[in-house]
Amino acid sequence: MKSMTMTLMGQTGGIITPVVISQKTIIIIYGLCALTILAAFLYAMYLTKWVRIQPNENTAIKHISGLILSGANAFMKKEYRILAVFSSVFAILIFLFLPKPVWFSDNVGKNLVMASVYLLGTLFSAVAGKIGIYVAALANARTAEAATQGIRPAFRIAFRGGAVMGLLVVGACLLGVMGVMILIGDATVLLSFSLGASSLALFAKAGGGIFTKTADISADLVGKVELNIPEDDPRNPAVIADNVGDNVGDVAGMGADLFDSNVASMSAALVMATMLDGGIGANAMMVFCYAAIGLLASIFGISTARVSENGSPTKALNSSTYVTTAVFLLLTALTTYLYPGFQWRIWGASTAGLLVGVIIGLVTNYFTDGDFPIVKKVAHASKTGPAFTILSGISYSFISVLPAMVGIAISSLVAYTLCEPLGPGYGMYGISMAAVGMLSIVGMIISNDAYGPIVDNARGLAEMGSLGEETIRTADELDSAGNTVKAITKGFAIGAAGLTVISLLGAFISEVNEALIHMGRTEELLTGFNIMDPKVFFGILVGASIPAAFSAMLILGVEKNAQRMISEIHRQFDEIEGLREGVSGVEPDYNRCIDIATAGALKELIPAGLMTIIATILVGLIGGVYAVGGFLLGNIVTGLLLALFMSNAGGLWDNAKKYVEAGNEGGKGSEVHKSAVIGDTVGDPFKDTAGPSINTQITVVSLVASLLATVFLIFSIF
Amino acid sequence: MKSMTMTLMGQTGGIITPVVISQKTIIIIYGLCALTILAAFLYAMYLTKWVRIQPNENTAIKHISGLILSGANAFMKKEYRILAVFSSVFAILIFLFLPKPVWFSDNVGKNLVMASVYLLGTLFSAVAGKIGIYVAALANARTAEAATQGIRPAFRIAFRGGAVMGLLVVGACLLGVMGVMILIGDATVLLSFSLGASSLALFAKAGGGIFTKTADISADLVGKVELNIPEDDPRNPAVIADNVGDNVGDVAGMGADLFDSNVASMSAALVMATMLDGGIGANAMMVFCYAAIGLLASIFGISTARVSENGSPTKALNSSTYVTTAVFLLLTALTTYLYPGFQWRIWGASTAGLLVGVIIGLVTNYFTDGDFPIVKKVAHASKTGPAFTILSGISYSFISVLPAMVGIAISSLVAYTLCEPLGPGYGMYGISMAAVGMLSIVGMIISNDAYGPIVDNARGLAEMGSLGEETIRTADELDSAGNTVKAITKGFAIGAAGLTVISLLGAFISEVNEALIHMGRTEELLTGFNIMDPKVFFGILVGASIPAAFSAMLILGVEKNAQRMISEIHRQFDEIEGLREGVSGVEPDYNRCIDIATAGALKELIPAGLMTIIATILVGLIGGVYAVGGFLLGNIVTGLLLALFMSNAGGLWDNAKKYVEAGNEGGKGSEVHKSAVIGDTVGDPFKDTAGPSINTQITVVSLVASLLATVFLIFSIF
Repeated sequence: MKSMTMTLMGQTGGIITPVVISQKTIIIIYGLCALTILAAFLYAMYLTKWVRIQPNENTAIKHISGLILSGANAFMKKEYRILAVFSSVFAILIFLFLPKPVWFSDNVGKNLVMASVYLLGTLFSAVAGKIGIYVAALANARTAEAATQGIRPAFRIAFRGGAVMGLLVVGACLLGVMGVMILIGDATVLLSFSLGASSLALFAKAGGGIFTKTADISADLVGKVELNIPEDDPRNPAVIADNVGDNVGDVAGMGADLFDSNVASMSAALVMATMLDGGIGANAMMVFCYAAIGLLASIFGISTARVSENGSPTKALNSSTYVTTAVFLLLTALTTYLYPGFQWRIWGASTAGLLVGVIIGLVTNYFTDGDFPIVKKVAHASKTGPAFTILSGISYSFISVLPAMVGIAISSLVAYTLCEPLGPGYGMYGISMAAVGMLSIVGMIISNDAYGPIVDNARGLAEMGSLGEETIRTADELDSAGNTVKAITKGFAIGAAGLTVISLLGAFISEVNEALIHMGRTEELLTGFNIMDPKVFFGILVGASIPAAFSAMLILGVEKNAQRMISEIHRQFDEIEGLREGVSGVEPDYNRCIDIATAGALKELIPAGLMTIIATILVGLIGGVYAVGGFLLGNIVTGLLLALFMSNAGGLWDNAKKYVEAGNEGGKGSEVHKSAVIGDTVGDPFKDTAGPSINTQITVVSLVASLLATVFLIFSIF
Repeated sequence: MKSMTMTLMGQTGGIITPVVISQKTIIIIYGLCALTILAAFLYAMYLTKWVRIQPNENTAIKHISGLILSGANAFMKKEYRILAVFSSVFAILIFLFLPKPVWFSDNVGKNLVMASVYLLGTLFSAVAGKIGIYVAALANARTAEAATQGIRPAFRIAFRGGAVMGLLVVGACLLGVMGVMILIGDATVLLSFSLGASSLALFAKAGGGIFTKTADISADLVGKVELNIPEDDPRNPAVIADNVGDNVGDVAGMGADLFDSNVASMSAALVMATMLDGGIGANAMMVFCYAAIGLLASIFGISTARVSENGSPTKALNSSTYVTTAVFLLLTALTTYLYPGFQWRIWGASTAGLLVGVIIGLVTNYFTDGDFPIVKKVAHASKTGPAFTILSGISYSFISVLPAMVGIAISSLVAYTLCEPLGPGYGMYGISMAAVGMLSIVGMIISNDAYGPIVDNARGLAEMGSLGEETIRTADELDSAGNTVKAITKGFAIGAAGLTVISLLGAFISEVNEALIHMGRTEELLTGFNIMDPKVFFGILVGASIPAAFSAMLILGVEKNAQRMISEIHRQFDEIEGLREGVSGVEPDYNRCIDIATAGALKELIPAGLMTIIATILVGLIGGVYAVGGFLLGNIVTGLLLALFMSNAGGLWDNAKKYVEAGNEGGKGSEVHKSAVIGDTVGDPFKDTAGPSINTQITVVSLVASLLATVFLIFSIF
């Protein structure tokens, strides 16, 4: 084990002296983690109950919110059914091949454990998503009704409804990771848990993303553009699908995405920590401390979130994030100080990660918020026509990538440099702790994010339930805060994914080396990947083109699916008598639209997902582990670039449209507005389908590579 | 020298036994090269004379073509003036720092040589561009007149006019490289020559690109969209600027771009060859043989280009390309067979490069030509509105990147694997020979490409000179062939740049190692760049974001500049009486538009160019040579990706518009057409400004890095 760690970063000198902690300390830390998880779950239960007892008396709203919930359930049922097939196949493959092909294995039990843990990963995430959607559907109706009383009570319900998802996701993540470590005690197995989470995230995020944008674009194009009826008009057959989409895309999808990133970052850190510790020791337990403190800080942050009457909901959301960040930094500093062997360098690495996350959030905000010049410039450029909306949006979003990429680059350099003096292998461990640090406040982040679809839905319900202009305005204000915060969340999620996959690259090397040691091929131990090695270079170029093709396939999926749905909407308006005129009692067939969005989303997603997995396997079988190392790098680099670009472009166009709608550059209905709407439509699948799915794609590919390391060592052509 | 080569790829075994060739053989090869260059120049002179004696009697056309020429000259004069300042500063910096800071240097003479050779590089390219523009301007008027007689004579004039540029560029490249090698005998100095060529290319390609798209977009938006007057209507104040743009962007710009790539590929190959040979030997002379044979094959291909009456000009252009390719492969096979020490592996590497170039061309054609399904799909998607034109265009172009990237990846792997058995260091030499092979037929490629703007101009002249419907139709057909071929050329140019910069990465390592040996720091000799080294990783992430920011700055430049020009056009239509109505004798102030395009282009270009150079230097000063290695890799990877994406997207949208205009999906004037026009406008700066400029950006950065290697070794912080 020692020789492995020593070669991890290609260093040969130095002796590892892991800080020894007693079994008792380990048990105490596990115990405290368990208490934190319990607290999170209890708090989530309390919030759910609290949301449920809020007034919900308007029958129209009840009816529609019921439709939304049943639509979301229909989607998830179908999604989970396909996922069950998919993950059974995957579980069998895992059993057959991992950690070693079962026919070479001296320990078939381990293969079985890997497969079971994989399934557990999908299950945990699925349950969290399911409950999250349920609470969001409770909250949206109640938020709409509370909006008649003003911003303050409505904000509270929406935020608390969203917070349930945040608490559950982080609690489930910590519970799963801890459970695996306690029961099995092998960090490698965690990669399988993480792959389970990623499989679900791929379906939830990319599938949900296709669903939501299919519905959104179709509803808008036929409703707002062709028929000139308002958004969320109940005559529109796609309107329920649109609201369902917000839930499945942003509540369940984003939750699964961040569950995935969170599990992946912890797994990568634990793989490296156990290697440094030679088992579960001080470094591994440090990971648990940081994660638990993050959850605790999020609980605290969530409990402080409130908006004063006439206060800004955006500020309220941001200030709880800052509170969470501050609490986390303080508590981790304290813990690190008290921790056996006091290693402030690790705290520094984690802080570097978290700060860069915040910086990426601020940059995203600058490039996508209407209060800053970029959105105004794009709105202004739209005066010359939609081509300029597109060109300026694309250009500024490309520029917005630079600070974020440089930020990630610097934080990984800083984390590495800080921790390297602790001993060989600690540099990479430092990077993984930066990722853990960045993701530590993820409970708060998800809460903010899930708030978005709840208020978006509430706005729709207020419109459909005819709660009056004043209420709709209140709902609008809440909604606008959701949009701003969403852009920040996405930047954060992508940045975190960036750091995580760097550490997954480290985990990949560890896996390869462990396999090589088991095979007795110790002279081949990896020390890294040389760019000038043509196999590595081959992998880099192929890997770099995958995120582009993957995101393109998803966008084309949305497009194809939207074409189907638009035909269906046209059909209903043509065939259902009285629908167009809004004759009372005439209702469109909402379910048909939900069915189309569901079936199409899953159909379009699968080829894209398979393409990336097959590409990984092909590259591995052709060029072996060196090509795969390059492949992962190429994938990370362009994946980050495109994910940041697409998320920011979508946010930018969305807010440029809102800026025009607020009466600037000609206002609603002007030519400029038409151009801005075109920009927004282009941005929709960018920001809600392709951009955030790239994260998951990167993680999936990294995990598949790590898990198949042994296979590539045995079977590769070159 | 031996130890250096041995460590070049991190290999330690094996002994280099370069094939020895006699001084006499070297002289014979140089002599044959010189004869080929002479033949190219004489043939270019003959073609120029031939073009000049073609009929040119229509006074209206003479007048306008004169305006175009003087506009192009005005742009180039201003461009060259700024370039003179820029390159003087650069030359002084080179003198001060290269190959070593002058105050450390034991050989100040070498610094002086580097600076002079740099200036020579700019000069050669500038002269070729100037003559090329002149001949193009001769040819366009004559092509328009010949078009009254039919396709056959018009094609001939246009093609021969373009071929002058092709012959001059390749002849000048070979002459320059050979001159430097004979007079100075040091391949490193070639990098300076290459940087000179790149500096010019940056101005010519990016500056010309901004110019041409400013004029094109402005002329179209006001003319076609607002006032509904036809393309090339002489009332439009921007019409001459538009035609000038074709020349400065596509004749001079593309010429400078390929001159640059060609010089860079030869330089990289020669740096590695002289290292293998320990001076000028068999490997270095092989580079000259291949380059000269490429020029010879191009001369032959050019001389065979003709179209039968009613034949397809596209086919004629493609078939001469195939002739050139076949002749090249045959002659190089023969030469390789007869060459001392017969190394078919090197021939294989070069062939792999050339074939991948052809494959990239075919893929590009599939994704951008109206005869294939993709263009039709994009046109069909436009039915749902411009947002879908954009979304589908972006998606398919992202997918189109995959085969090209995989192609480059495979060709470099094949070239490396083929040549590696020849000895240590031969693998990288093989990759550089693949690049030389790919660029070998560049004379033919440029000829095809320069044909495009000539027929485009001729179409304009036919319209403005009122040569009648029939002639305009003929000109249209010639023009359409130009568009198709242009897309292929671009794919080719980008692919070649990809392979070239890989070998420039090799050249960078050689430079660093040479410097280290001179410094006596032999224990630090580089063997490559480890992805897992945080400095390398830092460089990769930063490098990867540069092409995105660079292209964004150019696109924003076009946009800003177009806004200025549109105001000017509006002003002229408002203030010049009778202009709008087309009162005879009333002419707009064409020169004001040309001035705006010129001043704006150069103003917008400089920040983008400086940003990339400064970023390179900063990364080098922060992270040293390891960070720079990563930076170059990141830059190459996303640079290739974005360049291919942008070029293909632009071509795709352009041809989708043409497909609709040909009467499909509703035809001209329909809503679909409006959407397609929006797509085309977005694509214009993609394909003619940003996309092809990224090539040059990558080369500039690679050369700056190689040249500053010593500086980074001495001054870096980490």
